[in-house]
Amino acid sequence: MIIILKEKAAPQKVQQLIQDMEAQGLSIHQSQGVNTTLLGIVGDTSKVDIEKIQALDVVAQVKRIQEPYKSANRKFHPQDTVIDIRGKKIGGGHFQVAAGPCSVESREQLMTIADQVKDAGAGILRGGAFKPRTSPYAFQGLGAQGIELLKEARERTGMPIVTEIMNIGHLPLFEDVDVIQVGARNMQNFELLKELGHIDKPILLKRGLANTLEELLMSAEYIMSGGNEKVILCERGIRTFETSTRNTLDISAIPMLKKKSHLPVVVDPSHASGIVWMVEPLSMAAIAAGADGLIIEVHNCPEKALSDGAQSLRPEQFSQIMDKIKKTAVFFGKTME
Amino acid sequence: MIIILKEKAAPQKVQQLIQDMEAQGLSIHQSQGVNTTLLGIVGDTSKVDIEKIQALDVVAQVKRIQEPYKSANRKFHPQDTVIDIRGKKIGGGHFQVAAGPCSVESREQLMTIADQVKDAGAGILRGGAFKPRTSPYAFQGLGAQGIELLKEARERTGMPIVTEIMNIGHLPLFEDVDVIQVGARNMQNFELLKELGHIDKPILLKRGLANTLEELLMSAEYIMSGGNEKVILCERGIRTFETSTRNTLDISAIPMLKKKSHLPVVVDPSHASGIVWMVEPLSMAAIAAGADGLIIEVHNCPEKALSDGAQSLRPEQFSQIMDKIKKTAVFFGKTME
Amino acid sequence: MIIILKEKAAPQKVQQLIQDMEAQGLSIHQSQGVNTTLLGIVGDTSKVDIEKIQALDVVAQVKRIQEPYKSANRKFHPQDTVIDIRGKKIGGGHFQVAAGPCSVESREQLMTIADQVKDAGAGILRGGAFKPRTSPYAFQGLGAQGIELLKEARERTGMPIVTEIMNIGHLPLFEDVDVIQVGARNMQNFELLKELGHIDKPILLKRGLANTLEELLMSAEYIMSGGNEKVILCERGIRTFETSTRNTLDISAIPMLKKKSHLPVVVDPSHASGIVWMVEPLSMAAIAAGADGLIIEVHNCPEKALSDGAQSLRPEQFSQIMDKIKKTAVFFGKTME
Amino acid sequence: MIIILKEKAAPQKVQQLIQDMEAQGLSIHQSQGVNTTLLGIVGDTSKVDIEKIQALDVVAQVKRIQEPYKSANRKFHPQDTVIDIRGKKIGGGHFQVAAGPCSVESREQLMTIADQVKDAGAGILRGGAFKPRTSPYAFQGLGAQGIELLKEARERTGMPIVTEIMNIGHLPLFEDVDVIQVGARNMQNFELLKELGHIDKPILLKRGLANTLEELLMSAEYIMSGGNEKVILCERGIRTFETSTRNTLDISAIPMLKKKSHLPVVVDPSHASGIVWMVEPLSMAAIAAGADGLIIEVHNCPEKALSDGAQSLRPEQFSQIMDKIKKTAVFFGKTME
Repeated sequence: MIIILKEKAAPQKVQQLIQDMEAQGLSIHQSQGVNTTLLGIVGDTSKVDIEKIQALDVVAQVKRIQEPYKSANRKFHPQDTVIDIRGKKIGGGHFQVAAGPCSVESREQLMTIADQVKDAGAGILRGGAFKPRTSPYAFQGLGAQGIELLKEARERTGMPIVTEIMNIGHLPLFEDVDVIQVGARNMQNFELLKELGHIDKPILLKRGLANTLEELLMSAEYIMSGGNEKVILCERGIRTFETSTRNTLDISAIPMLKKKSHLPVVVDPSHASGIVWMVEPLSMAAIAAGADGLIIEVHNCPEKALSDGAQSLRPEQFSQIMDKIKKTAVFFGKTME
Repeated sequence: MIIILKEKAAPQKVQQLIQDMEAQGLSIHQSQGVNTTLLGIVGDTSKVDIEKIQALDVVAQVKRIQEPYKSANRKFHPQDTVIDIRGKKIGGGHFQVAAGPCSVESREQLMTIADQVKDAGAGILRGGAFKPRTSPYAFQGLGAQGIELLKEARERTGMPIVTEIMNIGHLPLFEDVDVIQVGARNMQNFELLKELGHIDKPILLKRGLANTLEELLMSAEYIMSGGNEKVILCERGIRTFETSTRNTLDISAIPMLKKKSHLPVVVDPSHASGIVWMVEPLSMAAIAAGADGLIIEVHNCPEKALSDGAQSLRPEQFSQIMDKIKKTAVFFGKTME
Repeated sequence: MIIILKEKAAPQKVQQLIQDMEAQGLSIHQSQGVNTTLLGIVGDTSKVDIEKIQALDVVAQVKRIQEPYKSANRKFHPQDTVIDIRGKKIGGGHFQVAAGPCSVESREQLMTIADQVKDAGAGILRGGAFKPRTSPYAFQGLGAQGIELLKEARERTGMPIVTEIMNIGHLPLFEDVDVIQVGARNMQNFELLKELGHIDKPILLKRGLANTLEELLMSAEYIMSGGNEKVILCERGIRTFETSTRNTLDISAIPMLKKKSHLPVVVDPSHASGIVWMVEPLSMAAIAAGADGLIIEVHNCPEKALSDGAQSLRPEQFSQIMDKIKKTAVFFGKTME
Repeated sequence: MIIILKEKAAPQKVQQLIQDMEAQGLSIHQSQGVNTTLLGIVGDTSKVDIEKIQALDVVAQVKRIQEPYKSANRKFHPQDTVIDIRGKKIGGGHFQVAAGPCSVESREQLMTIADQVKDAGAGILRGGAFKPRTSPYAFQGLGAQGIELLKEARERTGMPIVTEIMNIGHLPLFEDVDVIQVGARNMQNFELLKELGHIDKPILLKRGLANTLEELLMSAEYIMSGGNEKVILCERGIRTFETSTRNTLDISAIPMLKKKSHLPVVVDPSHASGIVWMVEPLSMAAIAAGADGLIIEVHNCPEKALSDGAQSLRPEQFSQIMDKIKKTAVFFGKTME
């Protein structure tokens, strides 16, 4: 951390600042120029509150050098984290595809799709029981009943299940879920993240629509600092000025997150584009960029889907794409066991 | 709503679509071109799920004409909503300033600031008890104790209080709070919004960092559709590519929200810029653009503030700005009683 | 400028870097931490090529402290620049309104509007002769003939004229124009900027759709470093994710540019919003935020305008707004003589 | 095109509008609802000026259905355009890599790099003679001399050359260049585009930092409507809120452009990220998403590069990446002959 002092900073206040930093176990190196004085702060600054320092009246600017996250940081954990989801591994060369409907709509719908995505080679079953919808008048999901149906589909197919939580109060309903998803809109619902830090279950953390990669890693840090280190990061498109796709898939996020962190990184091409025919090229690109997995929406009857039908693949389309996904993952050195 | 059909749409499926729309009480006007067929949907389409229609395989595009919100829509409620906060009115020509520290830090800090902002002319006391912080290692607020201190400050000064909720489970703690704030990061925490729709208390709803005005109004609609019509909208800066300010104050949001909706609109110049000296010009601009109020951070000792010190005014600065705010509000035809 | 060295930087290469910097007349202060070594560079670093340093293999990061522009920098020129346009002053407390049609379309159209905006109190006549249009099939302006008509309107009304240049080769046509406008799309047409640095005429430099304020000031620097110091900066809205307005007026740009630079700053509310009824509130906000002037589109028959009709005011609307502009400018301490 | 009329539109003015449209050879289908009247405009609307219609006082909204570009549109030209650059083909399954230094700096530098990238398997030599730099104080390129050196390198290696034009007046200098590049900052320099429409030479058109794909295709249309149909589109990253990469590579642009247009699409991973180690994963992703080529910066001594050193590969790194590029292009069905 570098602190640039104001030109006429009162020496006494600067001294106070130095003492405060030293009291936090940090060492300070002062560099005196003609007009500018710099303080170089050395040590573990990840827990220093940068805003407090910014507010001091002797301080012109503060710049971090070290990342403000620690548990999620590859520097302190050089090896890839591998997460085991009922025997399905993700990270460290292990690649997984989670597939299923955007929303769980009925037993028949879910069981049909579950069978089909399993046959096509998906490893994990995804499906929304609680749905975040922009409009209060849109279908909000089957709730607890949706979770029961997912468990039934797991029983039937053997596939572990992932589904989204929107309300801390619902946590007991998720006790027997394999992976809990935190949606993009809740990426900075810090109260929810804290709670998820206290359970022992993989968390699929989706990047917020307008959140930086550093903020995503800080949200992972919220969960990890509570003790739960099983976090899977998910890039699902960001909000930009471009309107021809629903969101803009930030493909660079994959190599950058894998450089900065040891956590597995998956991509959701369905939400990133909002367009069925784009799921295939974006899936290929995600694998090529180093992703550890994909989350893909599949619906047996997209035109009847109660949410996000426009971006859902039909099972036969998914099956064809899965063939390409398998070959491409192998080509790029991943294993899908 | 306009539905543009695909070039070779199966007539039978189109007929099905028309019947479905009519079953929802809508009338359909078909317009047949050489290559393109349009369906004009007339009636109350605010509750039609646009994504379901988008997903139909006969549909090329769907475009809304009518807004997807109703309770918040000025078309159905032409007169300005005036919200009464313990006798302080906001909206419909009534202008209010809420001021106070970003975080409640101690009794002494809060009482000192409360006295000072009251003397300067603020109508409402703001202060954070629960703080959304990007880092799990940063100060998270005093919690329940902070709310108790705010109530004590209200007792002392007579000013109503506004403070942020982050967790549905905390709702009982807010029973005696005058205005409940929903922060930018929770603007689409729909579970929280639904809950706040069932209480009878003004809600200050902050726009999310990357949310459109339509999404803000849809979040207001979540609260209002539950029965609570006392929603105050707050513009607090959006995320853009510009880095010289923390966020970009979307000044056009003020006239646009007031055109589209009857709800009061306030502006938070402190968070919008993140810079103390910018609070004054942005406050002036907000009043000039038609805002119904301001929320300003004031700290008796910004360099000791545990959060957001860099953007907090000292009480004497605030007092000077309040003089200008009062004159400017009057110049633009508002009353501050 | 601060250079953060890589952990195991070869001492010999670091020495080389230090010597290179010293050879440019800079002094270097080294700050040695346990893992991190910082070099603080003191002196005039505005002409140091930051990318060259970034590329050195001993360098981890480089951060500027000093601004990379000098002629446009208020630090080196504390007093407001006042630009005189045929007797109309702008900057340093002097406020001007430029008004007129988006495009010059005919003699009759231009003379009618010129008379009307003059009557309403505008100081400068604006009008496009060469028009940047997204589509090659849209009206491209009257070209040289448009400039002749503008000069005729100046003759008739006494108002100085401002019009946009798009092609360096057209410069001779602009010899008798009072202010040359550089449009948003050409803000980084550096060849054009260089050329305009060699003439003695005020330049109205519009901010690019996605350019930072620093980039805008660097483009001003291009012109000023060539010898032409008469640059007027123009905020005209930036591109964001919000779709309810054509662009997002960055109101904070006004106080920030005036803090960083001594150059006058004007606002174009017509292009910023693209909506007629928003011109008034945005004009008020711009004045309140400290703008030195406004550029407003007026058309005697917006529904027949060959470009940008949707955002053009009718003369009678403009006249009403001008009354408010005059009163508001005076309220905020400006003079419009 | 759909025109939504205002609720109380004067029938006479509507009639006028309908006649105007019919006079342009379009047919109009009127659809009368209770509150809303729609006009469906059928025919070739690509040359209709949407802003003129928007400005009519009977019009509430106008929405395009048809794309506003025609020559670049795949609908009217279903087969991939294949461009031949001195025997090197691009598009329609043919994949090319252009490589070389950001700036041409000296004969020795250029010849060394040219030999090396040729050996590694690049098909085209890139190098900047005229450089668009944000700062007027930064290196601006060798100019005409740079072009001479590029031609000499072509002579030596047999590789065709691509270099950027910034000034219409420089066109004669580019007479013997194989591909003329239009940089991101000049994507909407319409005067330059028009001029390039009149020559018979491939144009590499880079997407502007904040331009939509539709705007990119409209700029291609400027060139093509002048008669030059040899346009290569280039995605090079867009400007977003994310700061960990210099720009955000919009990977979805590749399949979207190839869907909308028949023109070849290439990707510049060097500028998109600004980071050397990211060139490889982004190149892989671009191929996987369907790109027809890559443009990669290579410098024999990045730490001495006069521009963009931080993103340039060393020749040995480039050579390793080329091996992977070749295998990956073949895997995805491209030929690199």
